[in-house]
Parts: sequence; C-alpha cells; structure tokens
Amino acid sequence: MDQTATAHTLPESCDFTVFGGTGDLALRKLLPALYHRDLEGQLPGDARILGVSRSVLDDEGWREEVRTALTTHVAPDDLDTETVDRFLGRLRHLMLDAEQPDHWHRFHALLKDRPRAEQTVRVFYLAVAPSLFGAISRRLDEIGVVDERARVVLEKPIGHDLASAQAVNDAVGHVFDESQIFRIDHYLGKESVQNLLVTRFANAFLEPLWNSRWVDHVQITVAESLGVGDRGGYYDHAGAMRDMVQNHLLQLLCLVAMEPPSHVGRETVRDEKLKVLQALKPMTPADVDRDTVRGRYSAGLVDGAPVASYVDDLGRSAQHAGSSRTETFVALRTEVQNWRWAGVPFYLRTGKRMDRRASEIIVVFKAPPHHMFPNSEGVTEPNRLHIQVQPDEGMRLHLTAKEPGPGGIRLRPVSLDLSYATTFEQRLPDAYERLLMDVIKGNPTLFMRRDEVEAAWTWVEPILTRWATSPDQPLRYPAGTSGPIAATTLLERDGRSWQESDQ
Amino acid sequence: MDQTATAHTLPESCDFTVFGGTGDLALRKLLPALYHRDLEGQLPGDARILGVSRSVLDDEGWREEVRTALTTHVAPDDLDTETVDRFLGRLRHLMLDAEQPDHWHRFHALLKDRPRAEQTVRVFYLAVAPSLFGAISRRLDEIGVVDERARVVLEKPIGHDLASAQAVNDAVGHVFDESQIFRIDHYLGKESVQNLLVTRFANAFLEPLWNSRWVDHVQITVAESLGVGDRGGYYDHAGAMRDMVQNHLLQLLCLVAMEPPSHVGRETVRDEKLKVLQALKPMTPADVDRDTVRGRYSAGLVDGAPVASYVDDLGRSAQHAGSSRTETFVALRTEVQNWRWAGVPFYLRTGKRMDRRASEIIVVFKAPPHHMFPNSEGVTEPNRLHIQVQPDEGMRLHLTAKEPGPGGIRLRPVSLDLSYATTFEQRLPDAYERLLMDVIKGNPTLFMRRDEVEAAWTWVEPILTRWATSPDQPLRYPAGTSGPIAATTLLERDGRSWQESDQ
Repeated sequence: MDQTATAHTLPESCDFTVFGGTGDLALRKLLPALYHRDLEGQLPGDARILGVSRSVLDDEGWREEVRTALTTHVAPDDLDTETVDRFLGRLRHLMLDAEQPDHWHRFHALLKDRPRAEQTVRVFYLAVAPSLFGAISRRLDEIGVVDERARVVLEKPIGHDLASAQAVNDAVGHVFDESQIFRIDHYLGKESVQNLLVTRFANAFLEPLWNSRWVDHVQITVAESLGVGDRGGYYDHAGAMRDMVQNHLLQLLCLVAMEPPSHVGRETVRDEKLKVLQALKPMTPADVDRDTVRGRYSAGLVDGAPVASYVDDLGRSAQHAGSSRTETFVALRTEVQNWRWAGVPFYLRTGKRMDRRASEIIVVFKAPPHHMFPNSEGVTEPNRLHIQVQPDEGMRLHLTAKEPGPGGIRLRPVSLDLSYATTFEQRLPDAYERLLMDVIKGNPTLFMRRDEVEAAWTWVEPILTRWATSPDQPLRYPAGTSGPIAATTLLERDGRSWQESDQ
Repeated sequence: MDQTATAHTLPESCDFTVFGGTGDLALRKLLPALYHRDLEGQLPGDARILGVSRSVLDDEGWREEVRTALTTHVAPDDLDTETVDRFLGRLRHLMLDAEQPDHWHRFHALLKDRPRAEQTVRVFYLAVAPSLFGAISRRLDEIGVVDERARVVLEKPIGHDLASAQAVNDAVGHVFDESQIFRIDHYLGKESVQNLLVTRFANAFLEPLWNSRWVDHVQITVAESLGVGDRGGYYDHAGAMRDMVQNHLLQLLCLVAMEPPSHVGRETVRDEKLKVLQALKPMTPADVDRDTVRGRYSAGLVDGAPVASYVDDLGRSAQHAGSSRTETFVALRTEVQNWRWAGVPFYLRTGKRMDRRASEIIVVFKAPPHHMFPNSEGVTEPNRLHIQVQPDEGMRLHLTAKEPGPGGIRLRPVSLDLSYATTFEQRLPDAYERLLMDVIKGNPTLFMRRDEVEAAWTWVEPILTRWATSPDQPLRYPAGTSGPIAATTLLERDGRSWQESDQ
C-alpha cells in the first residue's frame, strides 16, 4: 500500500479539468503553474486542460483569457511564444450549469473525445465553493468518468466545523477512494516548508537539539498586509481561525513537531502529522479564555496609505456587517503533549491588515546554561532557527559571535544565512507547480488526509464554540500593526516575545 | 588571583621595547600592529616604543625604516599623516651588543629618561633567537628594570624539546614571575580562533553536539604554499613538528576540545587547555609508526611556477643540506582521552609548499542515523562546521537542503555562511594587535602558560624520538600538492578523507 515518492511516475495521458476555470485561483495560480510545468517539458504530451465554468465562452474565448493571465502572472523571460501556443492548444472550455443534466453529458463527451480516453488520468480540480464538492463528485460518478485513475483536488475550506467537514468528506468519499482525494494546502508545496523536512531529517545537527531539552518555544506567524478585499462574503462566515489556523498554521506546526518517519512515503509523513494533531493539548473553555486572542482590524495605515476597517470592508460585500463578530486575527498558545515536546509552548499567530506580509517559523532555543563571558548576560539573544516561508524563502540560524577587535570579548548577534534565491540561482517554482504535478503523478504525500483534517477540526472546534458563546467581541487593532496588545501579553506573560523583525 | 578579562585596563604609562627592533617580525608585524592601535587611540598617551638591535642606527634612522615598513604593511586608507608622525615620535632606537655591559647601562638610562619612569609599564618583546631569552632576562634583572609591572614576551620556539624548554622557562622564570611571562602564539589572536570560544560557549546550539556522540572526527590543517625561504638555517633544526604542531596546531586542538571554563579568566581558559594536552593519547613507538606521517617537499609547481626542493632551498642557507632528515610536512592522528571525546580521532596536518595556503578547523559530524529520503544515501555529505582561520576568516556550517523544484525530493549540499569581512564590514585587526594590547594591559589569557608548553613537549617528544631513531626518511611530496599519499591513507584507513577544498 505504501510507496516511496520515487514510485510515482508521470502518466502517458492526462486530462486536467478545472471546475471554476475562469475564476481567480485558476487564472492567477493554476494555469500559470501548469504553463511553467509545460515549459519544463513535464506535462504528458497529449495532456489537455479543460476549463469548466458557468461563463458563456468557447475554447478560443477561454484561451484569450488564459493568454492574458499568463502575460500577467508569468515572468516575461519565461513566456516562450511556441510554448504558449502549445499550451493554449491544450485548452478546452465547457460552459456548465451543474443543474443541467445535458451539460454533464457534454462534459462526458468531451472527456471521451480523445485518443486513449480509457487510459487517461483524469484530474478534477474543484476550484469552486466547498458546498459544491459533494454534488460535483456525485455527477462525475453518474456520468461514469470516475475510474481508478481519476483524482479529485479539493481546495480549502473542507467544512466549517467537524460535522460539516465529515459531511464533505463523506460525500466526496462516496465517489472517490481516499487515495484519490487530494486536499490541497499550498503551504505544503513551498520550497522552504519542504526543506524543513530535509533540514530536520537529512542532517544530523538539528535533531539532537529538536526537543524540550534544548528548544525554548516555537513561533509560527502568517501575517498578511491585505484586508479581506472582495472575499468578505466568504470570509465573514469563516474568520482567521477557520481560514488560516485550522489548515495552514496547524500543518506548519505538524512539520516542525513531527517525529521522523521511517521513510518519506505517501502515508508515513501523514501518519506522523496526524499524531501531532492528536497530541495537541485540548482547549477547555478556561484555556480558550487564557491562551487565545481574537482580533479585528479597525481603520489604519498600511505602508503609509489609509485603509478601511474590517466592518467597512465588509459593508461592500455583506449584508449584516454591523452584527459580525468574525475575527481577522488569532494568536494562541498550545502545547504538543508528547515525550519530545512536553512543556514547550507553540505560539501561533495570523492576521489580516498587519504591518507586514510574512510567513515564518521561528524555533527559539534555550539560552546557554551559563554565561561565562563578562557582561554577556542580557546582551545576547538565544539562538534561533528562522524559516522564512514568504515572501523570500530562506533559512537563517541566529547565533552569537565575537565582535572583531582587540580588548575584551564583546558579543554580537550574527546570522548564518541560506537564501533560496541567491543559493540556488534559479527561479523558485510556485508551490502549486509542485502540488499539481504531484496530483498528476498520483503522489498524495503533501496533501491532507481525511483524518488530519478532521483531527484539526476536533482541536479547533472547542475554541470556536467558546468564542461563539462568549459575550466578548474580537479586540480591535489598527490596520498596519502587529495585532491587539493582548497578543503581545500572551507571550510576555511567559517571559517571551514575538520576533517581529528578524534580520 | 584569577581575574576576568574586563579587569585589565590600559596603563597610564608604557615603554614597549622590541629586542630585534630592525628584524622582519618587528617591521612587518609588531610596529604596524602598534601603529594601528595608536590610530585607534588605544596606546597610552606617553607610550614610547624602543627598538633595540645590533644595527648602528640613531632614532631618526630607525624611524625612517619604520616609516617605510608602515607604507608597505599598512593599507593606504589607514595611513594618516598626523598619526604616523605622532607614532614615529614615540620611537627610540638603541644599538646594543649584549656582551657590552655599558650598552645595557645605556638601555637603563633610556628607560629611566622619561617622566613617571617609576610607574611605567615596561614590555620587553624578545623578537630574537630563543637562545638569548635567558641571557637578556638576566641582564634586564641586573640593570634593575624588572619590577612587578614589567612583562616579557617570548616568541616561539620555546625550546627544542622538553628539557630545553624547561631550561628556557627556568632562566626567564628566574627573573620574571610566570604572571609576567607572555609566550605568544599569534594563532590565538586570530578573530576566528577567538570566535571559536564564543561560538561554542555563548551559544546553546553547538555544545549539545560537541562530543563523541555526534562528532565523527576533527581535522585541523595549517597549509602553507611557501617554502622555507631564508629561514632554512633555523628551520632545518626545527622541522614542521617543532615549528607548527607543538604550538599552533596543538593550541587549536585545545580550543576545539576544551571543556567550558567557569568564566573567561586569566587562568581558567589555560587550565582547560592544559587538561586537553594532558589527555592526549601518548604515542608509543608503534603508534608513531602507524599514526604519523612525515614528508618533505621535492621540486614541483606552485601556482603554475616551478619551485625548488627543500634540499635545494636549504642549500642556500645550511651547510649540511645533503644529510638533513628534517620534515616539512606532518600529518598525524590522535585522540583526546576523556569522557567527551573518547574514540573521536583528531587529525592534524601541516606542511610547507602545499597546494594552497589555508588554516582551518573542520568538525565533521556523524551522518544522520537513518536515511529516509529516497536515493539520499551516498549523495549527502555529513554536516560539517568549518572554521577558516586564514586566509579569509569565517565560519561555514555545511548541511543538506532540498534542491528546489517539483517532483521527488532531491538533496543537495549547501552552506550557511558567516564571512567576517562581509558580516562585520570593518577591517579585521591583525592577531598581533590584539595580543600586543593584551600584553600592555597585562592580560595573559591568550598566551601559553609554562605548563601548557611543557605538556605539549611531553606529548610531542616521543614522536620526535621515534623519528630520530628510525632509519626512515621523510616521504617525498612534490611541491604544490597536498602532501605525501600516506597522509591520505592515514584517513582512508579509517574510512575518512581530508576536506581539501571546502566551499
């Protein structure tokens, strides 16, 4: 059942269908990613890319949309005319109203209308509202295009809570085997996140330190400077906990905290991540009150420009903005209750309209047990391993060195740097490029398994429940700041602080 | 008795005497170093620098020699006219024939001929043949210029074997208290060597790894591309073991292997280094045959230019070149027999006319206990911490990272770098600058204590004895190579190899 990553090979024939083919995700991320892989010669020769949407568009119309998207989202140096034409030639568009059976029959006909249709790997990428995941799966089953080679890709959110996640998983699982379901979290496709596994497990120097004896605490921050923009309708029903913490932040936490698997296989890494999620300290209502902070941005300045409050942003896209209690910021403290991590706090933080855009994992080591250099106490910072996920992927080890010069020994913080961009001197592939190729090759290692998603909801739900029943409102923080003061207090209480600007 | 480094302060008044004031070391290193410290305003205001030599020179004559030396050995940007004039104004020269008592009386008069002569710190830097150390000390005592503020600096070699080292130490120690004797090893003044202590003991991330459980072995290389040049007369009586291993390489080994002292004090660091020297595995004659390699360069190419053999180089300066059995290269394997290092080989290597000029310490960690990534075995190198002492001081941590790109996980060696020159963006002071200031301030922490020197001789002597009694000649190696093949075999036998070019 379990196979190593190398066992996954490129199929000879593939139809890659994007439901929501004219949407933002498709045009901004998926099609440019597929184009880049085509440029590298990594798509099967006869691969087709089928766009499905409610737009009244023929193939040529969609090709023009995609051509424009490529011009916008692909670097000019990578826009090779011949490749663009070949790529656009792979494209077909189908206008589809899900309620119309004959539309589905047309889709069936389109899938069959190719050489080797019976041997073709069919990928169904559902870049649509999660409420449609079950229905689309059922239709695909009904028209008979789901065979053992078919794969379905689900974008977050998978559900709104544990019960609804289970309902989605049941509905999709009724049609697709779990091995055919690819729940995508693009953070897991980031080079720096991938490299976290390699750094931990292909090197001998980190694992001896990677435990409660030497690690003081871990910080995971996913900060956005953007507001909700046009997504207010969706966002106001989700909030930062569902939109970011339940998936991205907990997945990053899993990769930091997981035990070494026997090998990197389709199930082994996910088994270890699941164990971490199951070891997260459950939150009682009192824990929620003490160890979580909700915030919501008010008007402020981002990069010197005035921006509106969340409620004003929401006013444009929601009807009940005034009564919303949705959080745009979460900070929390948790622990992984196992032998390795007992007593080590993991601080998670995410928010919109913050003072910077940064996704980062910072492992803060304990201070040296003894200060032997004169005047060194208080001067030096503890060692930290800083893994930058975005905007600039890289890794830095912060340590203390001697400041050059005669006289006494003066200590000074320095860093050993690994910048991906400068070290590898090549374009870093977008996370989607890797993940879409993994789907085409049938490698689910970097996708969330059902039990992971549901374990994450199991841990998150008591927090959401407590918030929903509490009379408290999210704390206000001015746009362009690092969030509510209470998020700072959360760490200061423990004698620690967020690493705000870590150069 | 023991004081921390900060307790040492600049004296108000200082006379810095260089015996051998017109020699190569004085003009190339000592006076430029003192100039740089003067430029930084770190010399006492009324400090004088007294050159003593057999040259018939007046003050102005020596000043002109020194002015020329500064022009040659100080960067043009650092040659400030006003400072140069002030510095040259500090200079006095005394022609001295050690056999002439009245010359010594003139020296006495010169030292007394200054304000506050009774409170002046007197430094006597003996940049002369070691055979004169005892005699000069005795004369200084006789003319009454050695008080409790006086300090004497001894250049290597201290002796030729244990007995002669003891004789030198006895003779100097008859006049100066051990706390007044500064045995200089300029390697200990290098920033990168200093920083080794800070890296180990002001950071928490290295010490957990710094033992036999995680370290596979340690390599210390001091490679020179130069030959013996004009020093053949001295060198042929010393050889690489006495000239380099007994002092520089063993001192570097001590700093790598020592236990953390309670604080960095004048005796604490030296106490710990002494313990390492005393823990070196003693060499039996069989050990010497198995674990040491002697070499001598033959003619070859260095940087593309033909260079002569050691014997031919020697022919210019020695009478019995033909019968010389002196080694210009040593490689050896030793162990530190204590709890921390049991079973970890320390490989030392030094030579003249090698293929590069490099002084470096490389700590090679053990391989990860398990290879979990497909095809990773054999692809990855073990982690290494590389401390570059010269030519470019810096530190690099070599590790394995993921090569960017979709598809499987491909591993690739990368390095986290700390270059001193780029990190600190300032001129790195020469090792002598630090060490001379330490002498002036009376801080002996970085100087070799008598018991260290004698412990090093105790360990080295059985090797020299075995070599002297063995009929074998040093192995020939062509100039411009990495030494005799046997030095490679020494590690290959253990399944290891020298890190030749470590970028």
